[in-house]
Amino acid sequence: MIKVAVWGAGMMSQGLLGYILDRPKDIELLGVIDRHPEKHGFTVGEIIARDCDVPVTADWDAVLAKGPDVVCICTQSNLHEITAQVEPSVRAGANVLCIAERLAYPWASNAEWADRFDALAKEHGVSILGTGVNPGFVLDALIVMWSSVCLRVDRIEASRINDLSPFGPTVMESQGVGTTVEEFEKGIADGTIVGHIGFEESISLIAKAFGWNIDEIVETREPIVTSVERSTPHVHVAPGNVCGCRHIGRGYSNGELKIELVHPQQIHPEMEGTETGDYIRIIGDPDVNMVNAPEIPGGKGTYASTGNYIPLIIDAPAGMLTVVDMPLPRFWSPTE
Amino acid sequence: MIKVAVWGAGMMSQGLLGYILDRPKDIELLGVIDRHPEKHGFTVGEIIARDCDVPVTADWDAVLAKGPDVVCICTQSNLHEITAQVEPSVRAGANVLCIAERLAYPWASNAEWADRFDALAKEHGVSILGTGVNPGFVLDALIVMWSSVCLRVDRIEASRINDLSPFGPTVMESQGVGTTVEEFEKGIADGTIVGHIGFEESISLIAKAFGWNIDEIVETREPIVTSVERSTPHVHVAPGNVCGCRHIGRGYSNGELKIELVHPQQIHPEMEGTETGDYIRIIGDPDVNMVNAPEIPGGKGTYASTGNYIPLIIDAPAGMLTVVDMPLPRFWSPTE
Repeated sequence: MIKVAVWGAGMMSQGLLGYILDRPKDIELLGVIDRHPEKHGFTVGEIIARDCDVPVTADWDAVLAKGPDVVCICTQSNLHEITAQVEPSVRAGANVLCIAERLAYPWASNAEWADRFDALAKEHGVSILGTGVNPGFVLDALIVMWSSVCLRVDRIEASRINDLSPFGPTVMESQGVGTTVEEFEKGIADGTIVGHIGFEESISLIAKAFGWNIDEIVETREPIVTSVERSTPHVHVAPGNVCGCRHIGRGYSNGELKIELVHPQQIHPEMEGTETGDYIRIIGDPDVNMVNAPEIPGGKGTYASTGNYIPLIIDAPAGMLTVVDMPLPRFWSPTE
Repeated sequence: MIKVAVWGAGMMSQGLLGYILDRPKDIELLGVIDRHPEKHGFTVGEIIARDCDVPVTADWDAVLAKGPDVVCICTQSNLHEITAQVEPSVRAGANVLCIAERLAYPWASNAEWADRFDALAKEHGVSILGTGVNPGFVLDALIVMWSSVCLRVDRIEASRINDLSPFGPTVMESQGVGTTVEEFEKGIADGTIVGHIGFEESISLIAKAFGWNIDEIVETREPIVTSVERSTPHVHVAPGNVCGCRHIGRGYSNGELKIELVHPQQIHPEMEGTETGDYIRIIGDPDVNMVNAPEIPGGKGTYASTGNYIPLIIDAPAGMLTVVDMPLPRFWSPTE
């Protein structure tokens, strides 16, 4: 039995809790921590409509005192936002799995911060790993996996075309869905429209795995303008306005484009004939031309990946790790 | 510098030697061993038209005495056929990478033999790993990789549809290409037509990675009958005769079909509209629907994969390993 605590009780944590409850002979759920008062007093069972009387609590000290082997953190995206969860978990002697995009390769956004995590993890003999579908799988680890059958890799071109329609108002705002083109440009300029978080991390993961020296990463964000009316329960987009954000990350070595990752996120892509999917092209010897359609759903894939890393992180070496430092990941079949 | 020796000087070894010579700052080629007298007296450079004066020799003792870190064995398919190469390499303190299909998961064909390899490798503190595209990647490791974003895996359906046209007479015979349907059935019955080697290994690798109990593996081989004339420099197939072998491996757990791997190998599949490719379907939550078209070439992919495992096996734990015990594989970029 692996003892696990979950930090966060939002959508991603709820999905992960379902995964955990599906493995009652493998995982002991020690506790669920959440800082939002409206979740306190409820049990996990009440929140996700399953049979489980573990309560959701703000008292992280009490949960960590139970000695989890692994703490799964599903809260926010940036290093400074997750540090108050990562550090006490590590100090309690727990391995950390965390879906924060910046943690997939924390040296990309803040090398000193990453080194501090690394030193702290080594001091306590545990591992920290950033997990998820993107970054963490489609646009990095899976590309790395495919490259292993190549004699030569000249360039990577990959894209993930997905559908934002199921998401709520926060995602619509951060992607600029429903704005005019002018509002979109203004939102990009003032940082209220961010697009995808993870290009620097994915490009750095590929470069690390290959031993490539990527000396420049450039990101561009363009509005996807719809020519038809597109709507969801949370947003209405008139023709001529913005239905999504075409975000591209490019990694260069000595001025040469080596890695191009394209991630256009929009509502109802099918309304103008765009098929969603995960696409990997390796230009090399041999070439790789991979399609997975439709795309692996971002939410479900992220909490599945996180759960499936639980048994692997137990045996991993101490330190701040990345998915390219880990064993081949795999589905963890519940013990019957 | 990693010191490498290559055992075998056939097509696969020649491809791997090209990979090795592309990494002059990373790999020191200590020697090439081959038992065929017609290859002796030649240098690697003469055999593969590159600049390299390492000779091909039958004197494996002398090559192993130079202390290779890794011996790459590209000779035959079955455990008893490679043992005379694996054992002295391990006794010389070298890690072994070997493309023999049976070595991808040697417990499938002979558990005692596999355990002997494991004990010997541990005794000498080195690792043995079976590598290749199939088994070793498309129909096992890549499926395992994809499963890591699944909450639930109910069943695997995968296929590799390839083109045998570039291969020589030995492959044509072992696949029954050019026979009548009656001759094909007779060849299957008497063991002269074998189809693909590797289904037991691939199914066992997936089962090991998932923790599935596969208690029965059933293989079927059917003739692919052409309705048009198909020819290569080595074989002519008249309409109504056999242009390939549709080989299927199925793994069951408690009578339930869990893994179905389909590998129809034929000459000129395009002549009747068959598109070659690698296809993976995971039926689970979420589903995976992956296509790589055209398929990764079997030869090139196999020696690329073998070369790319060289740096990874140096750091691997001692013993008889498999690709699902290893780190995420990746392209090894030559040091410039």
